[in-house]
Amino acid sequence: MDASAIVMHAPVIRDDGVRDRVAVEEPLEIRVRGRALAVTMRTPGHDEELAAGFLHGEGLLAGPVRAVGPTADLAGNVVEVDADLAPHARERRFYTTSSCGVCGKGALEEVAVHSALMDPADGPIVDRALLAALPGHLRQPGFDVTGGLHATGLFTARGELLYAREDVGRHNAMDKVIGRALLDGTLPLSDRILCVSGRLSFELVQKAAVAGAPILVGVGAPSSLAVDLARDRGLTLAGFARGDRVNVYTGAARVSMRA
Amino acid sequence: MDASAIVMHAPVIRDDGVRDRVAVEEPLEIRVRGRALAVTMRTPGHDEELAAGFLHGEGLLAGPVRAVGPTADLAGNVVEVDADLAPHARERRFYTTSSCGVCGKGALEEVAVHSALMDPADGPIVDRALLAALPGHLRQPGFDVTGGLHATGLFTARGELLYAREDVGRHNAMDKVIGRALLDGTLPLSDRILCVSGRLSFELVQKAAVAGAPILVGVGAPSSLAVDLARDRGLTLAGFARGDRVNVYTGAARVSMRA
Repeated sequence: MDASAIVMHAPVIRDDGVRDRVAVEEPLEIRVRGRALAVTMRTPGHDEELAAGFLHGEGLLAGPVRAVGPTADLAGNVVEVDADLAPHARERRFYTTSSCGVCGKGALEEVAVHSALMDPADGPIVDRALLAALPGHLRQPGFDVTGGLHATGLFTARGELLYAREDVGRHNAMDKVIGRALLDGTLPLSDRILCVSGRLSFELVQKAAVAGAPILVGVGAPSSLAVDLARDRGLTLAGFARGDRVNVYTGAARVSMRA
Repeated sequence: MDASAIVMHAPVIRDDGVRDRVAVEEPLEIRVRGRALAVTMRTPGHDEELAAGFLHGEGLLAGPVRAVGPTADLAGNVVEVDADLAPHARERRFYTTSSCGVCGKGALEEVAVHSALMDPADGPIVDRALLAALPGHLRQPGFDVTGGLHATGLFTARGELLYAREDVGRHNAMDKVIGRALLDGTLPLSDRILCVSGRLSFELVQKAAVAGAPILVGVGAPSSLAVDLARDRGLTLAGFARGDRVNVYTGAARVSMRA
């Protein structure tokens, strides 16, 4: 699909009489070899990337993605993936350990199974000022029109934007970015920076860790479990990146204080 | 549980050496009569409300909630509900219709099954200025400390805050508010206003519709499917409520333009 042809917003006539545009939200069913695996509410466009990124981030793939494409579904809301699934793909995920029941520690351990441990001494070193300024370089044409889309961007360590994706779901925006890399054969993202327009949840750190990205920076706040997971996996996690300020929660060895 | 005893944020020593506090995020397993039904990442506190509200909003209950309480789980992340489940509670939800495959229309129809249609001429009439100012009256003590929590508040039609809940997940904050009402026996919320601190997704409109709340207002933008669902169910949906401005997307008959 030609990315420039994707329109992520739709016209609406508000009940107060004003013509406006809102972010499009539609369900997408992700099928693997004919079997429906998940339904997510998403902004249409880059559905192949979303499907590939979702399956990868959840640790559901047992081999390469051979093909991804739309089905004949009339609404355009089904994507079909040809790939081998991991044996546990049929099971529900529960974040449990035998020792403590359901707990954050179990969630961390589950992510550990699907992601390599990064040495905090490895990966690029970036200027703190560059990190703080990155969200300002995120391209967000859909947000500019609607105010209703999250964005994730993939940057080089020198702060060059490689590409960005927008979606009503912040997890979807990141799945699309990582899915693109998967389809391009450029995973793991060992020398890249992932930058998000919003808050830093456990789920987003999980996706970054599984994709092997050493640095994740966001405009918003991290959660406790996001900080725990980033520390556990050796990621650099930075939040509240706004203009010339940024908080570095974990992995400060990759952040240079040069002026 | 004494609400005042709930601490939703945790200390963290950032890798840049600063002592800070972040919003707590931990998994919660929701069990119904011993069977695990869902796991959600949430901010601890008001877990009974969250469980009740989640089950209600998803249309999974076939009768009243007889009891909700924590289990002996050591981490405090399991909540046990005593209630009859709807027959479809075991099935996965797919937003499908036979006519068009997976589509927004199917999603609307699914919500319609679990929620009464509201007459746009019914329910309270509120001043536009009151609606615009509501988010300013949301109590957000956790957000004030961490910047990392969403909030939902339940207001009377005169703009009085009845109570508010915060959570790392915006859907959880609303589940807690509606769950409290369910446990108090005050559903449907026929003459109330639900107010959220963020964006207005399909999922949030769904929960408001199932709870019978005629008015939903938020600080952020609505999605296309949120507008469609609000119109379909007869809700008043208002977004970008900031200070003295607010956009009314649907159900303007409940919004008075008195100065």
